[in-house]
Amino acid sequence: MRYVVIMAGGSGTRLWPLSRQGTPKQLLPLIGGRSLLRLAYERAVELVPAERVLVVTGAAHLDAVRADLPEVAEANLLGEPVGRDSLNAMAWPAAVLARRDPDAVIAQLTADQLIEPLDAFVTAVDAAFRLAEAEPDALVTLGVVPTSAHTGYGYLQRGDAVAGFAGACVVREFREKPDAQTAAAYVASGDFWWNAGMFVFRAATFLEQVRLLEPAVHAGVLGLAEAPERLGEVFTTLKKISVDYAVFEPVSRGQGSARVLAVPLPISWKDVGGYASLAEVLEHDDDGNTVDGRGLAVDTTDSLVMNTDEGHVVAVLGVTGLVVVHTPDATLVTTLEHAEQVKGLVTRVAETAGPEFV
Amino acid sequence: MRYVVIMAGGSGTRLWPLSRQGTPKQLLPLIGGRSLLRLAYERAVELVPAERVLVVTGAAHLDAVRADLPEVAEANLLGEPVGRDSLNAMAWPAAVLARRDPDAVIAQLTADQLIEPLDAFVTAVDAAFRLAEAEPDALVTLGVVPTSAHTGYGYLQRGDAVAGFAGACVVREFREKPDAQTAAAYVASGDFWWNAGMFVFRAATFLEQVRLLEPAVHAGVLGLAEAPERLGEVFTTLKKISVDYAVFEPVSRGQGSARVLAVPLPISWKDVGGYASLAEVLEHDDDGNTVDGRGLAVDTTDSLVMNTDEGHVVAVLGVTGLVVVHTPDATLVTTLEHAEQVKGLVTRVAETAGPEFV
Repeated sequence: MRYVVIMAGGSGTRLWPLSRQGTPKQLLPLIGGRSLLRLAYERAVELVPAERVLVVTGAAHLDAVRADLPEVAEANLLGEPVGRDSLNAMAWPAAVLARRDPDAVIAQLTADQLIEPLDAFVTAVDAAFRLAEAEPDALVTLGVVPTSAHTGYGYLQRGDAVAGFAGACVVREFREKPDAQTAAAYVASGDFWWNAGMFVFRAATFLEQVRLLEPAVHAGVLGLAEAPERLGEVFTTLKKISVDYAVFEPVSRGQGSARVLAVPLPISWKDVGGYASLAEVLEHDDDGNTVDGRGLAVDTTDSLVMNTDEGHVVAVLGVTGLVVVHTPDATLVTTLEHAEQVKGLVTRVAETAGPEFV
Repeated sequence: MRYVVIMAGGSGTRLWPLSRQGTPKQLLPLIGGRSLLRLAYERAVELVPAERVLVVTGAAHLDAVRADLPEVAEANLLGEPVGRDSLNAMAWPAAVLARRDPDAVIAQLTADQLIEPLDAFVTAVDAAFRLAEAEPDALVTLGVVPTSAHTGYGYLQRGDAVAGFAGACVVREFREKPDAQTAAAYVASGDFWWNAGMFVFRAATFLEQVRLLEPAVHAGVLGLAEAPERLGEVFTTLKKISVDYAVFEPVSRGQGSARVLAVPLPISWKDVGGYASLAEVLEHDDDGNTVDGRGLAVDTTDSLVMNTDEGHVVAVLGVTGLVVVHTPDATLVTTLEHAEQVKGLVTRVAETAGPEFV
């Protein structure tokens, strides 16, 4: 049967002070009051019944996930005691599902982006499911058809077409985040898609690759699936490595025993990693401003003002391209250009003001 | 005997959200934890004993003044039920003091500026006292020797010297705030001083001019001095007019029965009317920033960050020339260039967020 596993890890410090140690980015009600996780869940239930949606998150965030997604059963919430990178975040739920259902086919989806339109997304993931069901040796990646020469994403190079599956192809090679010139060449060639970090595969096929390439991790996650009470003890011993580096890249080069295929995801795919990208996806007034919460922007253009404190007013006067984010215990003022450096600022805040503010 | 009356009126909306309806500018602990009023009081007690220092303020601010100046006796605190401009703010204490001491000589001083050095100030006011004591028909104004062609101050034109009092002169004419070209010409001529809005006079001489020029106000304030319990009833009936327009300008033109003289005040006189001028008087770090309260400024230059909420952190990243002021219920973000427009912003805040925020 088909399953969806939503990955909701990460701390999202680039959205401080909205995102905090206890409230990562995916759990913030950023988009019309809904979180990115909630939106990912609403996509998932278009693909499979609610009882076959799993969420992998940090153990510290489980309560927040429960509050955001009350529909998800407790058995389908996997809380990592510590972040151990994406191989474990994918191999652990694969082992859990393989134990429940030896024929499980998993769509491993992210909760970091705004994805539109929904029907194109559902159609593409359904095609990936069908490909993974038809080709038992397939690890299917979802490749976003680029709309710009973005340097913030990894790319994948398309190889031979897969007969009988329109648009599907073998992945020739994965490429790291390119420089601007390389990205432009990738997009111009038409041979490259963005690596969405979303995958569809049979649990058994994926786990077999893990067994061949990272046997200790394989043994560890199978052990966890059998004895979940040993989570705290086992999880921290797992090797910290990305699934691209551990599985997809070596398998695409012929290591392992599977093939990496790709299907196109013809969607608008907007990352919401920091305030600059958040400002892009939110609605603006005629002056290019977004004011969310109690606040006002006067003689101001192209600025983002967010205030989560209802008993407080934020007034912005005479600025351009500014980001002002106010929460009950912390306020950030920066520019859209500097918004990517908020992560480093958060370190400084923790050092100088105290860890309770981050 | 000599007395000092400190005027501490005004709402100071240009320093919102630090200054509020209940806490005007002069009461804010802006300068190393001391308020402008406190600094004015400390100048006053260099001139007269503490029991001869009076403070005129808004009735709503009396408690705050008591807290800031516990040394001032209750009988020396005059709280105006409503603001009725500067004639009443000067005529009322003059009437109160004339009743206590028919020979009272009053230095009417402001609390709006940073004044340095103290000894030059004391020497100049002492000279003005001596002039007012020697010349019973004198209203003495203190004229600040200009250090720039400032367009934010009124000017006074110097006339004939007063024999026997070095530097003292007759005031030929008062001039309103000039445009930049006119201000430059004033300063170049050497004939003009800034009108400091500080005066020394015999209470009887000043009140006699009020009697001649604004008899209803004269009758009103004399009545108030006799029957302070009628304050609420009488004060609102007083004509709202500035002392310059009602007394000093007409007397300088030969109306009334006195002469307007001036003595020079050779001091550094820094207005603290808004954030731009406040930023100038506060100490900066090597990047030109002032961070007051819990906050940090990273990759930031020439900016003012003030935070009065100890449980909150304000982090500023990658900006120049910005003003960020955080208080428990309101946050302002603007530029030094726009800081003069905060007054208008406050009106908008009251309209959109509610009067409780201003």
